[in-house]
Amino acid sequence: MRNIKLIIEYDGIEFCGWQKQPEQRTVQGEIEKALRKITREDINIIGSGRTDSGVHATGQVANFFTNSNIPVHKFALALNSVLSKDVTIKESYEADEEFHSRYSAKGKEYKYLIYNQRVRSPLLRHYTYHVPYELDLVKINRAGEDFIGEHDFRSFMASGRDVDNTVRRIDKLSINRDNNIIEIVVRGNGFLYNMVRIMVGTLIDIGIGKISQDNIPNILLSKNRQNAGHTAKPQGLYLEKVFY
Amino acid sequence: MRNIKLIIEYDGIEFCGWQKQPEQRTVQGEIEKALRKITREDINIIGSGRTDSGVHATGQVANFFTNSNIPVHKFALALNSVLSKDVTIKESYEADEEFHSRYSAKGKEYKYLIYNQRVRSPLLRHYTYHVPYELDLVKINRAGEDFIGEHDFRSFMASGRDVDNTVRRIDKLSINRDNNIIEIVVRGNGFLYNMVRIMVGTLIDIGIGKISQDNIPNILLSKNRQNAGHTAKPQGLYLEKVFY
Repeated sequence: MRNIKLIIEYDGIEFCGWQKQPEQRTVQGEIEKALRKITREDINIIGSGRTDSGVHATGQVANFFTNSNIPVHKFALALNSVLSKDVTIKESYEADEEFHSRYSAKGKEYKYLIYNQRVRSPLLRHYTYHVPYELDLVKINRAGEDFIGEHDFRSFMASGRDVDNTVRRIDKLSINRDNNIIEIVVRGNGFLYNMVRIMVGTLIDIGIGKISQDNIPNILLSKNRQNAGHTAKPQGLYLEKVFY
Repeated sequence: MRNIKLIIEYDGIEFCGWQKQPEQRTVQGEIEKALRKITREDINIIGSGRTDSGVHATGQVANFFTNSNIPVHKFALALNSVLSKDVTIKESYEADEEFHSRYSAKGKEYKYLIYNQRVRSPLLRHYTYHVPYELDLVKINRAGEDFIGEHDFRSFMASGRDVDNTVRRIDKLSINRDNNIIEIVVRGNGFLYNMVRIMVGTLIDIGIGKISQDNIPNILLSKNRQNAGHTAKPQGLYLEKVFY
């Protein structure tokens, strides 16, 4: 069987996240429906990981096995012709038999956009998190450095989840301001549930002075979600790249 | 009576344009409804000009007369608390009695965004015009210069309109590419119906080689809509500033 790899962009607003669920419109569900139309096979696709309702992606990766003999680059074209406009296959490749979007992944990169202005923006309301308070970028930058490296991120995981190993490695965390937009890019070897959103929420709480700028090492050591900041809203988050 | 001036941002996607129409959701209609709620007066607002369905604004201007004694900066806050999230009052000012958003305007600036990529973008579908063909920016830049100055723009006005004076002055036209996004900024003393969109559509037709790069002076002289290019889509257009 052939193993086909897809690079996917989507606008998360009108999806109930990535993962297929009965009676819900999800990205996985829509792509599988489109694959049935073009291959007449009943295909399950494997995503690199879930994204929540409202979260966007410019570089989600998925793969699937097929007996179809459609030329590989035609998969993107054929799928895009039947998919609705809020999801697009950017590229389709032939992958090795062993390639698995989730298990083969060596790391991921996310982008988070904050709109930092007193008045909300209609044009950016679905694509940024509106923070109307003044943010101290010096403090946020200082604190952000403490995430770099390997740590137990249990404090930065949504509570109620049961995961054995909560140690993850953050390789990059950059923070840039362009006018009213603050862009945070985070790269790491893996992410726990809501981890990026809790990291960003904590940095925002540091920027407004609610949490001390030196507190991240203590929050990490405490392994207690309650010590971290709030969970930043889904619409500011973008899955940008998956590394293999 | 007091004359209040508003600076307005809106996402044009779910509006049938600016101008009030029975049974349609319009920006003017929504703001007047909000004003009735906060002042209990039946107020007509005067916009600097109409925008079409799908067209956005970051700096639309409107004014209205009221007997209300709400402090002027509170108008923005109070209106935003009742308006839906796709329209926002960015500022509210006290204006002179003679100030008229439309008749007092000395000029306007629009921005137009083109997404120039083979594959469409879900995230930008409502906020750019997708042009999948290769565009020759050198030709577009060359041709754009011919719009500068005072000309009869009859060829760049949607047909079926009856306007006495079709002479307008373009003061600035800049074209910049940042990755896949081409941003065109146009400033002038006034614009005819669909003028910016036909100017941009013509520049795109020049960029793909359908119209010669030296042809704009001839198109202007012909005073015939049929000689200009296509009308670029509404969702790439933003009313950015009105000058007084």
